[in-house]
Amino acid sequence: MKIKELQKYMKSNKIDVAVLLSLHSMSYDSNVYYFTNYEGQGVLIIPKSSRPILMVPEMELERARKVSRIKNVFAFDRKAKMFLHLREILKKRKIKSGAVGIDYSSATVEQYRALRKGLKASKTRDIGNALKCIRGVKTTAEIKILGKGFGIADAIVRSAIRNFRKFKTEEEAANYMKCEAIKRNCGLSFPPIIASGKNASMPHYKPRSVPIQKGFCIIDFGVCYKGYCTDITRMVYVGKPTEKEVGLYNFLLRAQENAIRNVKSGIKGAKLYKNAVKDLRHYAKFFTHGLGHGVGIDIHEFPSLSPKSKDKIEKNMVFTIEPGLYLTGKFGMRIEDTILFNGKKAEILTKVPKRLVVVK
Amino acid sequence: MKIKELQKYMKSNKIDVAVLLSLHSMSYDSNVYYFTNYEGQGVLIIPKSSRPILMVPEMELERARKVSRIKNVFAFDRKAKMFLHLREILKKRKIKSGAVGIDYSSATVEQYRALRKGLKASKTRDIGNALKCIRGVKTTAEIKILGKGFGIADAIVRSAIRNFRKFKTEEEAANYMKCEAIKRNCGLSFPPIIASGKNASMPHYKPRSVPIQKGFCIIDFGVCYKGYCTDITRMVYVGKPTEKEVGLYNFLLRAQENAIRNVKSGIKGAKLYKNAVKDLRHYAKFFTHGLGHGVGIDIHEFPSLSPKSKDKIEKNMVFTIEPGLYLTGKFGMRIEDTILFNGKKAEILTKVPKRLVVVK
Repeated sequence: MKIKELQKYMKSNKIDVAVLLSLHSMSYDSNVYYFTNYEGQGVLIIPKSSRPILMVPEMELERARKVSRIKNVFAFDRKAKMFLHLREILKKRKIKSGAVGIDYSSATVEQYRALRKGLKASKTRDIGNALKCIRGVKTTAEIKILGKGFGIADAIVRSAIRNFRKFKTEEEAANYMKCEAIKRNCGLSFPPIIASGKNASMPHYKPRSVPIQKGFCIIDFGVCYKGYCTDITRMVYVGKPTEKEVGLYNFLLRAQENAIRNVKSGIKGAKLYKNAVKDLRHYAKFFTHGLGHGVGIDIHEFPSLSPKSKDKIEKNMVFTIEPGLYLTGKFGMRIEDTILFNGKKAEILTKVPKRLVVVK
Repeated sequence: MKIKELQKYMKSNKIDVAVLLSLHSMSYDSNVYYFTNYEGQGVLIIPKSSRPILMVPEMELERARKVSRIKNVFAFDRKAKMFLHLREILKKRKIKSGAVGIDYSSATVEQYRALRKGLKASKTRDIGNALKCIRGVKTTAEIKILGKGFGIADAIVRSAIRNFRKFKTEEEAANYMKCEAIKRNCGLSFPPIIASGKNASMPHYKPRSVPIQKGFCIIDFGVCYKGYCTDITRMVYVGKPTEKEVGLYNFLLRAQENAIRNVKSGIKGAKLYKNAVKDLRHYAKFFTHGLGHGVGIDIHEFPSLSPKSKDKIEKNMVFTIEPGLYLTGKFGMRIEDTILFNGKKAEILTKVPKRLVVVK
């Protein structure tokens, strides 16, 4: 997407070439996908002032050439060691490799060492933070894709809530949502969380083939559409809630809505988190995770709304606002929207109503 | 699983403590899962001669305590920096941390640097290869899980082949297989590959919403059952194959069956690959990937059957044998079994018949 922006950063930070690695065999690196649209193994070379090159294994060449936005796509020489071959390519094209930019947050120690040795790079620089910041601000094209993805996620959550009384087990409800995603040709941002009764006190609970318990039930879901994640959490109540329970739900909802109102240009993630903690008053001790996270190709990306985050909110960032309360052995609840900050206010991308749905 | 085996390796390699990191927010590290059965964020500490400790974020504590095979499970102090807190824990428990074992193939550069700094570790050692070797030889419990997983994968492939004429597009066939996996409460080892006609010349083709083309069609599929992957590829032919096409398929099938017969104790991955290349004669130039890979918690693990692999075959290894031929712009074919080497011979875990199925 924003290769020129990265090149500008490289120039002002004296980085000759960025080398982005997607070397896992069956998954792919989100940075490489971001710039190329290619989901697979390969190495993306971005020189500071010439056109990028995508190198892939021979078996991926035809596919990479078809799907990549980057036009220079070549295969690695199978007989040579990968990073030695990379060095030859850089030499031949007169691309300097004195200072090499690498994403330290995704490159493994093994890859880093092989790369340094193969390229004979005298200096390496961490460009992880620059990449995070670039990807944190979404382009018009990304916002369009995300909008469609959230529409699909919403439809599935609405349908799951409508059908909720039919599900006998947590797993059945989760499976229903998975199949609905597949029917719509989507992947999943993460396996759906259906956490009922006491299980809801575990924020990342994995649904099991156990009957859906009475009480609050967390539905946390997201489809992956055209490589972009979505994220939404809604609550249903199975049985008849007491007045106190309804009161607590509405208390959390008010805190969540207030957290959304607090979003403004330049505010730090930690500040948004702290404001939410204040709103949760003496319940804050049951709020055991961050307030939110950016959403994009990765389900958790820039910005982070956690206790120590210095990430600043900017126009066209897409992120979640998701306070929750977890009382071990008792119950749990979480309300999560994903929002687009349009420079002035938060536009809520997750439009499923947030009133507590009672399922009898 | 085999913590004692790792500790034995550590003692003979003068490693005081192994620190295994599972710090990705929504996925999990396969080493940590292997030893703990916990799928989530955390750090697994394995001292060379005392019991292991699992540290997790506060929000994961209840869940980790429920699912972990390791009994010492604690939460990180939210107020402290993670690796500084880790240092305190090691100190308090009198666990030496002079030489720290880390998996360089999964730890990122960023994690590695923070860990070294936080622990004030004077020496770090790469235990990636030791972990790969340990995990490469499956335990009885793992073989049992894998057996069940392969039974499920087989049933879905049989059903997809039986129903193949009903599928209008590649995506429809892939979606059918995905939903069948979900119905059986399984995940996927990877998104199913349905590659028809010319598309089959791309080994890692992603199915699209295009009509299934006439000619050879690759069906490459695997469910993930109880955290363990499976992998199988079968071919169907849409339309009426020519005698030459049937001949080529049978040629590949003979090479595949011969490759399975070549499996014996102590043989190197590269040797198995080279034997297969020999069998493929002048067609070998169309065989653009490795002969096979280990299968376990990761879809690609030890041993590798690639051109330069020194990995040696041992009793109770589970791996694929999957020669393929890819003619760009024309067609592609691959036949893949996963086998268990029982010390004497290869037991085929993928039992779907390998004769070419003609779909009219």
